[in-house]
Amino acid sequence: MVELSVVGILAGLDDAALADVERHINRKTFSSGAQIIEPESDSSDVYLILSGKVRIVNYSVSGREITLEEIGAGGCVGHLSAIDGEPRSACVLAVNNTDVAIVSPANFEKIVKNHPSVAWNVIHELARIVRTSTRRIVDVSTLGANERVVAEILRCAQTEITDDGSALLSPVPVHSDIAGRVSTSRETVARVMGTLARKGLVNKIETGLHVPDVRRLEEFLSESIH
Amino acid sequence: MVELSVVGILAGLDDAALADVERHINRKTFSSGAQIIEPESDSSDVYLILSGKVRIVNYSVSGREITLEEIGAGGCVGHLSAIDGEPRSACVLAVNNTDVAIVSPANFEKIVKNHPSVAWNVIHELARIVRTSTRRIVDVSTLGANERVVAEILRCAQTEITDDGSALLSPVPVHSDIAGRVSTSRETVARVMGTLARKGLVNKIETGLHVPDVRRLEEFLSESIH
Repeated sequence: MVELSVVGILAGLDDAALADVERHINRKTFSSGAQIIEPESDSSDVYLILSGKVRIVNYSVSGREITLEEIGAGGCVGHLSAIDGEPRSACVLAVNNTDVAIVSPANFEKIVKNHPSVAWNVIHELARIVRTSTRRIVDVSTLGANERVVAEILRCAQTEITDDGSALLSPVPVHSDIAGRVSTSRETVARVMGTLARKGLVNKIETGLHVPDVRRLEEFLSESIH
Repeated sequence: MVELSVVGILAGLDDAALADVERHINRKTFSSGAQIIEPESDSSDVYLILSGKVRIVNYSVSGREITLEEIGAGGCVGHLSAIDGEPRSACVLAVNNTDVAIVSPANFEKIVKNHPSVAWNVIHELARIVRTSTRRIVDVSTLGANERVVAEILRCAQTEITDDGSALLSPVPVHSDIAGRVSTSRETVARVMGTLARKGLVNKIETGLHVPDVRRLEEFLSESIH
């Protein structure tokens, strides 16, 4: 059984406090592809991800899927409704088999109010989402679809950059995932990835997608924009 | 002198706690148009808005201004950097003459950690921003510029709707403000507002922009999309 201590927002709690939280959760396993949170549901439960991976998605009026984020083990989803009592803002799907700990809204509020470190962790996590969202709003408002794909690959590469200025994205990013994250089609992503590969800016190798020179990719993006 | 009790995130603090916060702030007044937070600055101070109004803006690489939000008296800006220590994510301008209370990042963290009700208020406020941002990401990813303008007017009307199904937006929304909020040009907003007026969906009257039937505006948007 996965320990609750993997959960980011519970960081800093001692064993006694974790044991207390453990008494207030229900554990559940969702199989790959299962819907964890339905947008129409009345529930305001919070889901702590103990293992696996989930995808937070929204659907446009025309039914197009917009991926807002993917969250792995240690993350937390569904807390917005627990915080403000409003309906679910998105749905959550299990990408892999996923173990979760379910916390009721009342218990979530109690845990946050009883433990200043948990409150601060939740604030930190929400601030991270606000920053990511802001960047995405600016991107999607000001960049074309092609540039958004390059910008997304660049962002991934920048977080994995090594001393020699190269980066390895492993596993190779899935085109439809990138498409969802930057609000474009899978076909556009495939086309842009083809261009980047022909220019030697990325290479698919056995262990992942290799970016030999992150700085050159940055220059390529900045030239495409101007 | 405006009391700190107007500030939303300080709601629930008793007089003694407010007096303690008062000892840890600096008051400052910015005149209309002044820059309150510069994106390049090293400061991580938090600004509590006591009176007036500020605009949070971001600039695209090509210099276009994207309005993220406008915040009036009682609001709070600049807390992201105080929370995560990262650089400023946007700049903040005074729209009107604006009185603020400035809190250092260390004091902000102390206030949040010492007062569970303040922590919960901050969590609430961040959750609100996440919801607004999510809606905007979905809008800008899936709606055309014309539909985004209508959706924005509709959202304003829905918050002001009266028993007879009409709404009054007062003062009349400024075209360039709407343009910034939905990531389009002022010209597009002017064109769409003209269409809405010709169809009788909105009327400019002395006291503001009158929406005689919010439900009809909703139907108009939903027909434009499908």
